[in-house]
Amino acid sequence: MALTLVSTCKHFGGSLSKYTHPSATNQCTMTFNVFLPKAAVENNTKVPVLYCLGGLTSNEDNFSIKAGAASRASQYGLALVFPDSSPRDVGFAEAGADPNVGYSAGFYLNATQAPWNKNWNMYDYIVKELPQVLASHLPIDTSRSSITGHSMGGHGALTIFLKNQSAYKSISAFSPILHPSISYWGLAAFPKYLGEDRAVWKEHDTIELLKRYSSEKNLRQDFKVLIDQGTGDQFLQEPDRLNTSDLITLIKEQGLENQFEIRYQDGYDHGYFFISTFVNDHIDHHAKALDLALQDVSR
Amino acid sequence: MALTLVSTCKHFGGSLSKYTHPSATNQCTMTFNVFLPKAAVENNTKVPVLYCLGGLTSNEDNFSIKAGAASRASQYGLALVFPDSSPRDVGFAEAGADPNVGYSAGFYLNATQAPWNKNWNMYDYIVKELPQVLASHLPIDTSRSSITGHSMGGHGALTIFLKNQSAYKSISAFSPILHPSISYWGLAAFPKYLGEDRAVWKEHDTIELLKRYSSEKNLRQDFKVLIDQGTGDQFLQEPDRLNTSDLITLIKEQGLENQFEIRYQDGYDHGYFFISTFVNDHIDHHAKALDLALQDVSR
Repeated sequence: MALTLVSTCKHFGGSLSKYTHPSATNQCTMTFNVFLPKAAVENNTKVPVLYCLGGLTSNEDNFSIKAGAASRASQYGLALVFPDSSPRDVGFAEAGADPNVGYSAGFYLNATQAPWNKNWNMYDYIVKELPQVLASHLPIDTSRSSITGHSMGGHGALTIFLKNQSAYKSISAFSPILHPSISYWGLAAFPKYLGEDRAVWKEHDTIELLKRYSSEKNLRQDFKVLIDQGTGDQFLQEPDRLNTSDLITLIKEQGLENQFEIRYQDGYDHGYFFISTFVNDHIDHHAKALDLALQDVSR
Repeated sequence: MALTLVSTCKHFGGSLSKYTHPSATNQCTMTFNVFLPKAAVENNTKVPVLYCLGGLTSNEDNFSIKAGAASRASQYGLALVFPDSSPRDVGFAEAGADPNVGYSAGFYLNATQAPWNKNWNMYDYIVKELPQVLASHLPIDTSRSSITGHSMGGHGALTIFLKNQSAYKSISAFSPILHPSISYWGLAAFPKYLGEDRAVWKEHDTIELLKRYSSEKNLRQDFKVLIDQGTGDQFLQEPDRLNTSDLITLIKEQGLENQFEIRYQDGYDHGYFFISTFVNDHIDHHAKALDLALQDVSR
């Protein structure tokens, strides 16, 4: 598992670096950015990690450039990993034809349908291969991991957590897609990736997974999800896009109020200027679960 | 002077907006971004302003997206204005042919040579027209202004301040081009914009202006410039690019140690991940000169 350094620069006393590596899971070259705090860079100290999953149309750069998360992460000694949101350069035209399916639309699932099932295995990539790559090559302790994401990446963070409840110390999301099996985006992508059987779609849907696991008593009791959602988000106002209200209803039905903190933020939209406004709260949320203390780190 | 709102979103309790307007100075449509803090947006309170000038290859978006300046500015109630770095769409091919001359290369001066002298009047635009536009249309008190910039924008901030010492309360720069009349970039742009007379070039050069004004005792005594410069900046290592050492020599010769704080930052490069690491220090520097106090502003 070779890792190739594409670029690196100093950032908040640590480093922000871009790497590529051959992905056996996705059968293509994958790219990610990683922020390593000072202790990791200077002393090779193994540090905990927060995975930051991007939304539709994003790649590994959006969250790392626009969210402003490294400032607070540097003070906690927390690494940030920004994966690309899909496989790339897989050699068939359909992958670049639709913003909701293909490039930048990995949906953090394993596709079962051709031609997607060869490369679109973002679930296994995020859950298995990427942590192995990080643990093998970088001063990152993947046994101390948390996960967050934006929009499609919020869907990714939540579904990946629900299926791997012991693997992540904490979860958060900005403006997540919560009910893709009935949403515009899911209806565009899931038939292509997963086929027409809607029962299968529910395996990749926060609302449906939460409903099932909660009924089956297969939910960790001690987790806490922080979700920020702008009330000025155009996708909140359209029906069956984000479906935030479906989650709120389900939480009440299932008595999950202690596990979920959902904050409506007045007037904010779906973009990164919203994320950067509240990102420190999310870093604090994860740092608490990872048992990290704020420190005055020289730059 | 019509102002057209292109886009706006909520950001740190205030707003980040993009505007266009017809520019009489530059004879084209100009674009800028502006961050207005909460008090300006919600109560129409007139707030002080920090101009943030971009470098070569930038437009109004780079500093506003990448520097992370709005977080701290929101706590001081400080507006941030991010002008474009040159005229646009002027209709002659040469303007797009060279990254050092033309689009994104305004150099914050008034060109005297054809074809540039019709549009390339960025000095008058920043010093005169843009403040008038802001004061006429937005809750900004342009009598309380400070100025900063990156690279070519650092050159702009410093030369504009030196020629208008009463107009700006404070000045700072990241990785500024300090001696363009002998630098690679100046040698590329100044003959085109200003002709071959090198005595004219010195009117647009921080080192040369400072040398002259200091000798002539035409310097305000109470100003303080903060400059951050990364030691890993590739342009610091090449001769006659930034010429930081020329400024340090001049400061010693002219006894200007009280007016200039130049910080070499170990290992940082020329990019925005460097700027975002230190931007809060610059906002603090300007807030002190503008007599602003940190406040806990709800988002």
